[in-house]
Amino acid sequence: MDSFQGPITVKEYPLPDELSPGDVLVEITMAGICGTDVHLHQGQLDVPLPLIMGHETVGVIADTGGEVDDWLGDPLAVGDRVSWTVGMPCLTCRYCRLHRLPSRCSNRKAYGVNTPCDKPPHLLGGYAQFHHLRAGTAIFKLAEDLATESLIGAGCAIVTCIHGYERMPLRWAESVVIQGAGPVGLAALALASDAGGRPIIVIGGPAERLERCKRFGADVVIDIDVVKNPAKRRGIVLEHTGGLGADVVVECVGHPSAVAEGWDLARDGGRYMVLGQYCDAGPTPLNPHLITRKELEVHGSYGSEPHHWARALEFLRDRKDRFPFHELITHRFRLDQVNEALEKVAKWETGKAVICPNE
Amino acid sequence: MDSFQGPITVKEYPLPDELSPGDVLVEITMAGICGTDVHLHQGQLDVPLPLIMGHETVGVIADTGGEVDDWLGDPLAVGDRVSWTVGMPCLTCRYCRLHRLPSRCSNRKAYGVNTPCDKPPHLLGGYAQFHHLRAGTAIFKLAEDLATESLIGAGCAIVTCIHGYERMPLRWAESVVIQGAGPVGLAALALASDAGGRPIIVIGGPAERLERCKRFGADVVIDIDVVKNPAKRRGIVLEHTGGLGADVVVECVGHPSAVAEGWDLARDGGRYMVLGQYCDAGPTPLNPHLITRKELEVHGSYGSEPHHWARALEFLRDRKDRFPFHELITHRFRLDQVNEALEKVAKWETGKAVICPNE
Amino acid sequence: MDSFQGPITVKEYPLPDELSPGDVLVEITMAGICGTDVHLHQGQLDVPLPLIMGHETVGVIADTGGEVDDWLGDPLAVGDRVSWTVGMPCLTCRYCRLHRLPSRCSNRKAYGVNTPCDKPPHLLGGYAQFHHLRAGTAIFKLAEDLATESLIGAGCAIVTCIHGYERMPLRWAESVVIQGAGPVGLAALALASDAGGRPIIVIGGPAERLERCKRFGADVVIDIDVVKNPAKRRGIVLEHTGGLGADVVVECVGHPSAVAEGWDLARDGGRYMVLGQYCDAGPTPLNPHLITRKELEVHGSYGSEPHHWARALEFLRDRKDRFPFHELITHRFRLDQVNEALEKVAKWETGKAVICPNE
Amino acid sequence: MDSFQGPITVKEYPLPDELSPGDVLVEITMAGICGTDVHLHQGQLDVPLPLIMGHETVGVIADTGGEVDDWLGDPLAVGDRVSWTVGMPCLTCRYCRLHRLPSRCSNRKAYGVNTPCDKPPHLLGGYAQFHHLRAGTAIFKLAEDLATESLIGAGCAIVTCIHGYERMPLRWAESVVIQGAGPVGLAALALASDAGGRPIIVIGGPAERLERCKRFGADVVIDIDVVKNPAKRRGIVLEHTGGLGADVVVECVGHPSAVAEGWDLARDGGRYMVLGQYCDAGPTPLNPHLITRKELEVHGSYGSEPHHWARALEFLRDRKDRFPFHELITHRFRLDQVNEALEKVAKWETGKAVICPNE
Repeated sequence: MDSFQGPITVKEYPLPDELSPGDVLVEITMAGICGTDVHLHQGQLDVPLPLIMGHETVGVIADTGGEVDDWLGDPLAVGDRVSWTVGMPCLTCRYCRLHRLPSRCSNRKAYGVNTPCDKPPHLLGGYAQFHHLRAGTAIFKLAEDLATESLIGAGCAIVTCIHGYERMPLRWAESVVIQGAGPVGLAALALASDAGGRPIIVIGGPAERLERCKRFGADVVIDIDVVKNPAKRRGIVLEHTGGLGADVVVECVGHPSAVAEGWDLARDGGRYMVLGQYCDAGPTPLNPHLITRKELEVHGSYGSEPHHWARALEFLRDRKDRFPFHELITHRFRLDQVNEALEKVAKWETGKAVICPNE
Repeated sequence: MDSFQGPITVKEYPLPDELSPGDVLVEITMAGICGTDVHLHQGQLDVPLPLIMGHETVGVIADTGGEVDDWLGDPLAVGDRVSWTVGMPCLTCRYCRLHRLPSRCSNRKAYGVNTPCDKPPHLLGGYAQFHHLRAGTAIFKLAEDLATESLIGAGCAIVTCIHGYERMPLRWAESVVIQGAGPVGLAALALASDAGGRPIIVIGGPAERLERCKRFGADVVIDIDVVKNPAKRRGIVLEHTGGLGADVVVECVGHPSAVAEGWDLARDGGRYMVLGQYCDAGPTPLNPHLITRKELEVHGSYGSEPHHWARALEFLRDRKDRFPFHELITHRFRLDQVNEALEKVAKWETGKAVICPNE
Repeated sequence: MDSFQGPITVKEYPLPDELSPGDVLVEITMAGICGTDVHLHQGQLDVPLPLIMGHETVGVIADTGGEVDDWLGDPLAVGDRVSWTVGMPCLTCRYCRLHRLPSRCSNRKAYGVNTPCDKPPHLLGGYAQFHHLRAGTAIFKLAEDLATESLIGAGCAIVTCIHGYERMPLRWAESVVIQGAGPVGLAALALASDAGGRPIIVIGGPAERLERCKRFGADVVIDIDVVKNPAKRRGIVLEHTGGLGADVVVECVGHPSAVAEGWDLARDGGRYMVLGQYCDAGPTPLNPHLITRKELEVHGSYGSEPHHWARALEFLRDRKDRFPFHELITHRFRLDQVNEALEKVAKWETGKAVICPNE
Repeated sequence: MDSFQGPITVKEYPLPDELSPGDVLVEITMAGICGTDVHLHQGQLDVPLPLIMGHETVGVIADTGGEVDDWLGDPLAVGDRVSWTVGMPCLTCRYCRLHRLPSRCSNRKAYGVNTPCDKPPHLLGGYAQFHHLRAGTAIFKLAEDLATESLIGAGCAIVTCIHGYERMPLRWAESVVIQGAGPVGLAALALASDAGGRPIIVIGGPAERLERCKRFGADVVIDIDVVKNPAKRRGIVLEHTGGLGADVVVECVGHPSAVAEGWDLARDGGRYMVLGQYCDAGPTPLNPHLITRKELEVHGSYGSEPHHWARALEFLRDRKDRFPFHELITHRFRLDQVNEALEKVAKWETGKAVICPNE
């Protein structure tokens, strides 16, 4: 991507002659297209260009700079199928050290987001035939019984949600409202279901997404195209939560206006998580009196850390029958179809779309 | 109070001939005028009239309906100096029972707030010569070395803050910003100081209140009449918090706009408490993206419970040298001066104003 | 029961002529025999005699003293099938009030445990045709689709465990070892499974209990009759928990020696819950150095509160297909067979044994 | 130290010709003698020999291997007075990564504890004229207004306690019993006092240590040489804690038997921290029934991390007037007096003893 909003072109960069110690070169099998990539393309995030996008990626190791271990300590070899955490905290700033909050590292780099490709090693994003992983990247060797499609189908939404629930843990048997039926909403639903939440109510659309939500454990779905009145949506939530509202509400929509509706859906003393507001859409009218009067807790969470990936890989493998994330992938594109792919995703015409750069 | 905004008149009601079992009649020594009383008088809260206001009260027991114990189990006798929790939860609704959140009781009554005086026992507020306490009220016998002035000086602000910090506990040695130098801000400051917070920065005014804040443990005070630019105020906060913002910010202002400023004062991963938004001033522009990106926690707290009063009485006695709340009382009024008193409080012309109905 | 260890005889007590306001008379359908009843009969707990035992009971309302509501506010009527919380805290002692820990009420009464039957209303335990419930008892009307057998099959073990996990919440996807395959172990397993724990490893016996554990969600079972060496048991646990030990270990055995073995099964930084040590068997050798070095947390929990019963009833109904607690009932006895029943339970010859006093 | 229990001799090792990048050479000003050093010398911990002991050290930078930053990111220079965290976790094992528990790193090294001196760079402990710090050591430049004596006076006890209270946070205004008046007890007391605990009761001896405890904020001290009966000690604790026991009890003694006494001093629902059991003295009789019945929480904590040092340095500087840790130092020794020094410490004949190797 050379410019925001402009067409993305395929370029060639040289592969490295020799890898530095600890570096790894991966031949990419599949790269997920995340909603954030659409925002990136539209210029809604302030990132340096030119950029190879792609931050949800699986590939096969083509070369390593000497002996390299995966994040859990097992040696990596050419031919291993791997994934990795795209965020690279500096581990030396005050957020990394003093506050142990590497997701807010002051110098954070993320492959495919703020890693420009104009200088070597160039290949720092997933929409490419090869990906260069710098020494220190948290690489995970994938178990044989974990399909590439499961991991890319879940995408970065799953670690976003694992991180979120780590910051605001669900308690056993709580009622949960998920706002949004997209990738983040579906991941938030799956994890809430796995953690014993009930009832779990999903508010979103369109209808086919809500159907999938039911298969992923939603007890109640509310189609915003059908129930257009927020007061009626609230009525349905109250009906299923003893008349008081939900114990927990998770925002996975991305539109600021969802937050105001969401605060009304939580019971007094309830908890609210703002998971979807990755882009800065500016202020929206919110009533802070509700925080005081309802004694709400509101939590936020951003990005993820390697241990969230480790947990995600276990979850996707252990629970693949219950939560078949591989089914989400509806569209596969070649590398030269990336503009078409982004356009379809932007128009919500796909389930999960992926790029298979070497097919 | 017969009508909102109208003049308040002194009326006479009969004392009860005989008290029901468990009831207590108290001759009032001192009743604090809380900012909420001003809001009540202005009609900003939806309460039934006519009303005897006054929800911060100390008095001497004049009569009891048989044997009555104080909340901690000690017998009460005529002549005992007492205070009490004004909130009376029903203890049978779902908030009281299932969610153990009596501060959000669905049937909550609060003396001096929503206890109209047109029917017997009439005397259910503090701006009166006598106060009728129904059986089950959490009454506290006051220790001899706890001055009435200390308790009324701290007022309901102290239990509001104790409850708030119970919901969002301070951790040792955290940096704390208090927004607001009024009664709630001062109580939030005292408790943060007692809990080892540092530095503690108070943003507010006017100057004399900030002087008191320094005596109560503020390391830094920022006068909003002097530093009028929020960006400059933020600069001072950053300067004292390692450049990142405060670990904890406590809103004790009451104006919705304070919340937006406050979210900017917390460091990433920090915690924010909305303590002051008791009145519903409607929505205000707030940016939910900050919750996600900064990984904030926002907490609310409302009212208090008897165990907060028990803790407050201990605190005010144990720490009276360090936090001389009795000094806050600047104005004493007779019962027939109540209109003048409310007016002065509304104009911020007083420190803590009190009514001494039997003087 | 007139004397510890002696035979229990059937006695007749008069039914009340008239019920006091709020009291309820229940005709008993089924009373569970809990392991604690065996301990009570053997004199291992210090309770006053004579006693009608039975603290896990379901019955049908025969009479009420005026209008009485169930704990969630719905009116009760003759003919309603109900259960109730046996513990009756005083709600006025320091544990009830100041520390909000009614399970440790200084004046706690529990039906069927420390409610002697020599004085009216006599009928204060479950091994009887009728049960007298005093005003204020937390009574729950049972939903039609919740079988009496499900509730009695789960018994007081389920609320014991719900309370335990409230005090020491499971986090998502933790590895859990359950020590003990009896009623408490099975309940602890079911709840851990419902909360997404994995793997869940049960150590206990005999074999048929472990078979049931597998049906209730155990990923691994270790039969102590087969793997008699604790070091080998530990080896199996390590094998399934990444070589470090389990995130959480729950003791549901009752023998003090289980605790020493259990501390060895938790990983460093892990959590241990002592749920089964209801009887005081005195000190046992334990190594406190492990607490320091392994940075363990050890938690205890005792009895239960009404909100735990409310949660249990929801859980047993919502999850009856996944956790068929009604299958646990293997033996039904008449009232005059109580000695035989207790003997069989003491010898571990039964699954859940119950008394049906009106059959 | 060439052999356990044998005399320690002064040896000479060469200084490095050139430092590797990131390494730092420090000329030692003062090294504290910790009780653990006595245990090390007596062979109670399994560490490799020969060893230069000393894990509480302050010195002045003599040389650096290129540009090196202190842990908070500021550049270090020759002449800077510094201290450092002695523990060096591998940051790659499962405890470091997956469980974020570097204090339990599977490959942990600690200067002066398990860093033998027979191979270069030899100088890896504090009882020496120079100390070699490997690249990656968490080094802290000391503020001018923080005396070396304050830091060494507090010693590693202060970070041990900061870590402990991080794992088991004190809540505001809790009653606290500290078992032990030695260095760890005094640090636990100072931090509890700073965090607003009250009353704070210290049980220990001898009398002069208890006098210091009073100056450091103890409300009550119980001299075990005077009150020799544990039941009487418990009586005094109950007297000052409303008859129920303390909210929190912190074990800082080191003898296993203290734990049994301590569990009796906590109120039901209270919390107990085992901070002092660093050596494995084997099992001791403890009653796990108390954990269940009293619903106790028992927490452990081991070692510390760099952020605890950062907090300790701030605390010692900010609160030096209230907690004058520098006063603890009673004995200064030269390097060739180390045997005498250890003997005096072992016999409890000193306050804090230190070695000044270059005096």
